[in-house]
Amino acid sequence: MDWVKRNCEYTLTDGKSGFAISFAGMKFDENDLAKLDKAFAKASAGIADIEAGAIKNPDEQRKVTHFTDRIAYPESAAFAAVETFAAKVIAEGKFDAVVVNGIGGSALGPQLMQFAINGPYWNELPRSKRNGLKIYFLDNTDSSGFADLLKVMEPEKTIHLVISKSGGTQETKNNMIAMEKFYASCNLDFAKYAVAVTMLNSSLYKHAKENNWLEIFEMAESIGGRTSETAIVGHLPAALTGIDFGKFLAGACDMDAWTRNADFRSNPALFLAAIWYLAGNGKGDRNMVIVPYSDRLVLLSRYLQQLVMESLGKELDLDGNVVHQGLNVFGNKGGTDAHAFIQQLNDGRDDFFATFIEVLQDAANLEINDGISMGDYLHGFFEGLSAALRSKGRQTITIRIPQLTVYELGQIIALYERAVAMYAEFININAFHQPGVQAYKLAAKDVLALRGKVLAALQGKSGFSGSGKEFAELAGTPDKAVEVASILDKAALNNGAVSREFNGKNWVYTVK
Amino acid sequence: MDWVKRNCEYTLTDGKSGFAISFAGMKFDENDLAKLDKAFAKASAGIADIEAGAIKNPDEQRKVTHFTDRIAYPESAAFAAVETFAAKVIAEGKFDAVVVNGIGGSALGPQLMQFAINGPYWNELPRSKRNGLKIYFLDNTDSSGFADLLKVMEPEKTIHLVISKSGGTQETKNNMIAMEKFYASCNLDFAKYAVAVTMLNSSLYKHAKENNWLEIFEMAESIGGRTSETAIVGHLPAALTGIDFGKFLAGACDMDAWTRNADFRSNPALFLAAIWYLAGNGKGDRNMVIVPYSDRLVLLSRYLQQLVMESLGKELDLDGNVVHQGLNVFGNKGGTDAHAFIQQLNDGRDDFFATFIEVLQDAANLEINDGISMGDYLHGFFEGLSAALRSKGRQTITIRIPQLTVYELGQIIALYERAVAMYAEFININAFHQPGVQAYKLAAKDVLALRGKVLAALQGKSGFSGSGKEFAELAGTPDKAVEVASILDKAALNNGAVSREFNGKNWVYTVK
Repeated sequence: MDWVKRNCEYTLTDGKSGFAISFAGMKFDENDLAKLDKAFAKASAGIADIEAGAIKNPDEQRKVTHFTDRIAYPESAAFAAVETFAAKVIAEGKFDAVVVNGIGGSALGPQLMQFAINGPYWNELPRSKRNGLKIYFLDNTDSSGFADLLKVMEPEKTIHLVISKSGGTQETKNNMIAMEKFYASCNLDFAKYAVAVTMLNSSLYKHAKENNWLEIFEMAESIGGRTSETAIVGHLPAALTGIDFGKFLAGACDMDAWTRNADFRSNPALFLAAIWYLAGNGKGDRNMVIVPYSDRLVLLSRYLQQLVMESLGKELDLDGNVVHQGLNVFGNKGGTDAHAFIQQLNDGRDDFFATFIEVLQDAANLEINDGISMGDYLHGFFEGLSAALRSKGRQTITIRIPQLTVYELGQIIALYERAVAMYAEFININAFHQPGVQAYKLAAKDVLALRGKVLAALQGKSGFSGSGKEFAELAGTPDKAVEVASILDKAALNNGAVSREFNGKNWVYTVK
Repeated sequence: MDWVKRNCEYTLTDGKSGFAISFAGMKFDENDLAKLDKAFAKASAGIADIEAGAIKNPDEQRKVTHFTDRIAYPESAAFAAVETFAAKVIAEGKFDAVVVNGIGGSALGPQLMQFAINGPYWNELPRSKRNGLKIYFLDNTDSSGFADLLKVMEPEKTIHLVISKSGGTQETKNNMIAMEKFYASCNLDFAKYAVAVTMLNSSLYKHAKENNWLEIFEMAESIGGRTSETAIVGHLPAALTGIDFGKFLAGACDMDAWTRNADFRSNPALFLAAIWYLAGNGKGDRNMVIVPYSDRLVLLSRYLQQLVMESLGKELDLDGNVVHQGLNVFGNKGGTDAHAFIQQLNDGRDDFFATFIEVLQDAANLEINDGISMGDYLHGFFEGLSAALRSKGRQTITIRIPQLTVYELGQIIALYERAVAMYAEFININAFHQPGVQAYKLAAKDVLALRGKVLAALQGKSGFSGSGKEFAELAGTPDKAVEVASILDKAALNNGAVSREFNGKNWVYTVK
């Protein structure tokens, strides 16, 4: 099939919104698609089951409701409560900034939305040019991020959203505790600045209730972090920063409706899932490279990295077979990427497929020369790169949106959420749990327990000097020399119980 | 060899700076290393040749001088000129912001340095808390990035660095032209706000000279964009924002000195290159996942993506054989990543090796509970994740630095620059050209030429209506229906010569 015909056949367009996706630049033919008959049926049935309320996260015995909750959400009391709360906060003028304390699913979606809709310099705009609060994120347990925030935060003008479904997320808890202490040190009552977003009766819920926080908003148990951007997790930061969340939901719901079709030829999510499957031999053998030709979508690859990799990167399939599935995602933004890593994509390893996103409408009409605007150049670079890659036999998907508003952002997020759920059906895995994340949390607890043991062993040993191995023996954990040394390294650099000196081969630690 | 012994054998530490790198978590043994004897010799000789001034970029007939120029640079008149200029700009107080207009190598290094050293909220600090100018970047040809900048830029207080080695970089040129027009529209003379960083006698050099710009700083022909952070490209933005660039160079030069050793057992760059080679079977079969446990190093993966992929992603080796080499790089920051894509690394595809970077010294001592600080938790999560991955047979490299200052940033950048150059010797490719980048530029020109042809064909055709195919015929390029349609899509959304409507299957365009 020639290039023109492939574009006619394999471009799916929603005439109403102008959203279009083309698979013409991918390597597949009608035979490949025909072989997927059963997979398409399974994927359609699977997502219909999800939407009908089946237990599709069997490990956690949970329903998966992010696709369906968002239909009803705009008409709900919960939605109205958020809008009312945000409108009041903005109108009263007491607060000028909001800190979102949350990690992973509680941060990446709101960060993507802020950058895409309010732009990179929102916080630098004077209040008169912002229809909402400045916004900051605490999305780690790094004292550097916390210290940096304190340099610009005005505590009396800042409202804090603490977002954790279970309340047990240690990173979020740490930032909450540190912030409570900071407010206390300013003689301010943190409760008057704090809002919880959490599940009913979680530890965070109880903590907020007991301390009489400003407000508590409830999260649904059946919506996972990485698919929570269309629920309260996305809503509250958006509303406080003047973003029309209802329009975002309309975009997502319109994409949901478009992709409920069992025929992949008119269902872009189903087609997208099939293309991923074909491109990577059903095993993710090609990396997904996300290249939005839009400065404001630079965080999309990071968002999709979580959505795709946390959902699809699984050891076992639903029947318990060891499958080690996954689908790598990375990217940045075009045309910048062409001056960064596209050299490899063009000339190097043929181990990827690129997904381009073009925003047709320019933010400004900046004529450069001969009637060619800055946006025309961007278009030229996008089409040029796309053609160059194809001429080298590389594979490309193209998404075109007429403009970048919160509506199209909703469409994009819903498209990928649904393609992920459908691809999970293709490869028969649970896309809604994250057992590997639990594993590292447990391992981290062991490290902290070992640290406690080491520090205890140092009591009364002032002047004791030795290698990590000797300290491990001292602590009664002789097999943990490596881990003990790293605990001592950390302590030595933070005015802890030891100092260290290099003896030419190893660090020698001395108890202070 | 057991874990403790591997750590002793395969950890390289610089006692003076405290920089340490451990390869113990990678899968290799002494036999693997023994087989690399010749490769080690070739890599050592190769980098010695570079430093001796050989033509190591044969395609462009160029020397490669970034490793050696930086030794002499701090003592040079060029260095003093930058320092003097920056000190004067800061002292005079006329300018409060600097816009860096540059792409790829002219942007990623300065962006990394700003975020790492001045932190995420530098621009929001009051002038009294900044020992330098605010900083912004124009690193694309997206009118959105330009329009966003104008929202916060005070033209009379802003100095502009236009950075392009050849002067021909279209993205940079576009932003320069648009900015010149903007200044003219404000009745301001852009020349009084503009500084060029470019090669002697480049088109940009001539333009700046003719228009009497504030200053012109020269770039060396022999330093490529992706390795220019230790030269003027890194220096000028650093100096204008109060960063001690001399200290950065000291870090880089100390790493250079450490890694001039021909014995890989005491040369971390040579060892690192060997480990990449072994991990990816000499073909980049594993993705390099960069996970700094540091909020301020979040841009490191993006920087290394360019340095590694643009250098190593090559179609041909130096003997002209088709090799399609490359090494994928992606990442974000730990512990955040553990809530994002680490699920896949832990449980999913075993197609990567992770490189962790731990910063030992905490930015602030924030006690959370029971004598455990926020930094201790970060350490626990890093060690826990690292252990969890290894227990699953995944491979890890660990870099530890005592603190994150501009000195350690210099060490890290130099380490990777040298490892890249050495790995290129292992696989016998030219790490210093980028032929694939040229390919896309040519293709982009074709797109703009086609656009011109299409627009010319519309003259006098008001009311003409048809599909992309029909317009392609009209323009005399019947085989370009797809490309013509996308040009019309772009025009339709930007008040161009056509409008479009969806007929249920295709877009129908009408000449206005």
